[in-house]
Amino acid sequence: MSQLTRTHFETLDQDDSLAPMRNEFSLQDGLIYLDGNSLGVLPKATAAHISEVIQQQWGVDLIRSWNCHQWMQKPTELGDKVGHLVGAEAGQMLVCDTTSINIFKLAAAAVKMRPGRTKLITETGNFATDLYLLQGLAKLLGYQVQVVALPRHEVLDAIDDDTALVLLTHVHFKTGAMWDMSTVTELAQQKGALMMWDLSHSVGAMPIALDKVNADLAVGCTYKYLNGGPGSPAFVYVAKRHLSQFEQPLTGWLGHAKPFAFEDDYQGAAGIQQAMCGTPPVLANAALEVALDVMLTVDMHQVRRKSKHMGNLFIELIQQRCPWFEVGSPVSDEQRGSHVSIIHNQGYAIIQALIERNIVGDFRAPDNLRFGFTPLYLKYVDLWDTVDALVDIMTNELWNQPKFLTQNAVT
Amino acid sequence: MSQLTRTHFETLDQDDSLAPMRNEFSLQDGLIYLDGNSLGVLPKATAAHISEVIQQQWGVDLIRSWNCHQWMQKPTELGDKVGHLVGAEAGQMLVCDTTSINIFKLAAAAVKMRPGRTKLITETGNFATDLYLLQGLAKLLGYQVQVVALPRHEVLDAIDDDTALVLLTHVHFKTGAMWDMSTVTELAQQKGALMMWDLSHSVGAMPIALDKVNADLAVGCTYKYLNGGPGSPAFVYVAKRHLSQFEQPLTGWLGHAKPFAFEDDYQGAAGIQQAMCGTPPVLANAALEVALDVMLTVDMHQVRRKSKHMGNLFIELIQQRCPWFEVGSPVSDEQRGSHVSIIHNQGYAIIQALIERNIVGDFRAPDNLRFGFTPLYLKYVDLWDTVDALVDIMTNELWNQPKFLTQNAVT
Repeated sequence: MSQLTRTHFETLDQDDSLAPMRNEFSLQDGLIYLDGNSLGVLPKATAAHISEVIQQQWGVDLIRSWNCHQWMQKPTELGDKVGHLVGAEAGQMLVCDTTSINIFKLAAAAVKMRPGRTKLITETGNFATDLYLLQGLAKLLGYQVQVVALPRHEVLDAIDDDTALVLLTHVHFKTGAMWDMSTVTELAQQKGALMMWDLSHSVGAMPIALDKVNADLAVGCTYKYLNGGPGSPAFVYVAKRHLSQFEQPLTGWLGHAKPFAFEDDYQGAAGIQQAMCGTPPVLANAALEVALDVMLTVDMHQVRRKSKHMGNLFIELIQQRCPWFEVGSPVSDEQRGSHVSIIHNQGYAIIQALIERNIVGDFRAPDNLRFGFTPLYLKYVDLWDTVDALVDIMTNELWNQPKFLTQNAVT
Repeated sequence: MSQLTRTHFETLDQDDSLAPMRNEFSLQDGLIYLDGNSLGVLPKATAAHISEVIQQQWGVDLIRSWNCHQWMQKPTELGDKVGHLVGAEAGQMLVCDTTSINIFKLAAAAVKMRPGRTKLITETGNFATDLYLLQGLAKLLGYQVQVVALPRHEVLDAIDDDTALVLLTHVHFKTGAMWDMSTVTELAQQKGALMMWDLSHSVGAMPIALDKVNADLAVGCTYKYLNGGPGSPAFVYVAKRHLSQFEQPLTGWLGHAKPFAFEDDYQGAAGIQQAMCGTPPVLANAALEVALDVMLTVDMHQVRRKSKHMGNLFIELIQQRCPWFEVGSPVSDEQRGSHVSIIHNQGYAIIQALIERNIVGDFRAPDNLRFGFTPLYLKYVDLWDTVDALVDIMTNELWNQPKFLTQNAVT
């Protein structure tokens, strides 16, 4: 491969038809933000909309806003908007609660839908909350089900006719390694298990086709590639074919068939509405709506093409210019999500040194430097400049600083 | 009792030392808002703070804000602030999730702390989510525990040595009837049961002394008297003496002892932190913080005195001037929270007619007209004007309108 130059990246930016999308986001001059896979940036329209929701809807219209501004309908409306991004027809998704809570709801429902089966299969090293919620459920149920967590290469072989549920994260939070949703879903279902996908690290970065791959259940987060804001509410998906048997245990009043009848006995609402629990977070939903509306203007296939291209170029630059690092992500873009991890045992200090230069990636113990590529607001030249900074840090700066050595000792 | 006049109410306002607090809130001219027991009004400082959190903390400082702006610490900090309002020493409360979710966490923990006991006792007609979450838990556990819901006057006698948990709402959402927390807690504990209080309809309207009454567990909502904003996050309290055995099943990553170690196995954090589940909602927490800081400037005993006085005067006015209504709340202010229900079988239409006059109360089926008294922003004269409007509606307006008759037929 030929030696890359900054000019090459400048040219790519000039020819990038997604480049104008950067104007939709509020970004400080000089900042290179490679952490949109953890917390997405602020859409420019968010502040004004939240201000309107606060000042007019809450401040003036008050209690009437539950109806007149559809506060009560937002979980469904936003769920359907997320549905557009993940290939789910209307009526199968809600925006509510957190990814963690939604995993619990769906895993408990899955156990009920697969009576007698005892295994909940997942991956060791999965994003921790996925593992933990399954463990919490198993313990609560007195271990009538058990969590079977296995290394990635052993997961598929372990799915058997005693498996109630397989829960996997589509794109791995550390390595960026991506499961083939279609193949894995089919395999799980061949054994009679239900397949739940955690889309937290892929939604908004690539096309997803929940209905098409015949997924059973899904959850995910909206504050990463979707830019919903810090701690924005999560989403939940239950395939239409399961909705008539779907029964989740967090039976809050807004999942009731007639919540405002205030009846003494719970009677679950029909359809996905039964996944609702408590009162929806209006301000957070408002911020998310703005972000989803931005995302819905772009073609996710185009986003994915730029994302792959960026990942490939970044890896190529690291391989050409950075002999200090091992690439911790799949080199094949077909097997990789929208972030790339590189490995170094001084990772924490290196990330700090980058941050001091206004280049923000993040660190995941013990040795992962994560760089997220968000095609809507990242420039190709940012990749060059990041690697340039890494080269400078590794050759000129880092090893000479007593501060680094101290930090390093602490880490 | 002597006949009340508007002048009397004007004089009370002139002498009201809480009157200046009204300036802390954004209220439209001419609006009489008697629904602060359902959705509190907007504190004036909220919009600017949210704007700062959005523009600077999210927009500029981005991912760094989890540490530099204490986003991660807010659940604990806000929990301790709520603790000041409800008589809980630091380290026993968190702000997180919804009241519904928190009921589930604590009820499941209670079942575990009282092994072998099978009854979860609550009140029929309790706020529905309290009933529903207990039912959801019982069903999930295969009815190793059962929900025993009884009319109010039968609840206390039913508590026995097979009772794991008693869950009651301190102030009833419809009638405003108030339990004596100290007496009921002691009675439950004499039978070895754990006592959980739902403070949703009392917090922010009166002094509460969770530690002093020896409560075991508590939950509550922050968007009513606390003015945290629509759908703002809830709180959870576990008495210090229970924290070492406390174990809740929604074992999300932020309840882990070392969340950023991303270990495969859940190990609950020490103390109340284990009640955390997923990522905190930063914007909602920011709005709540402003509201709590306003509330913390006032003496809750003074708030309660004004609240009682308002309730008493309202009932007196209804009795003097409104022969059409039955009072649906306790007449004794010692047994009543901060809202008053009046009963009429045309309640829905009457509330609509009031709303057309910019007087906002609410309706709860089948016949409750609810009026909430929020001492921080309500004037005494508002009570007079509300009852004046009711008299006018009942004598001059309502019965002559075809629109009303139609609405009524539908209702």
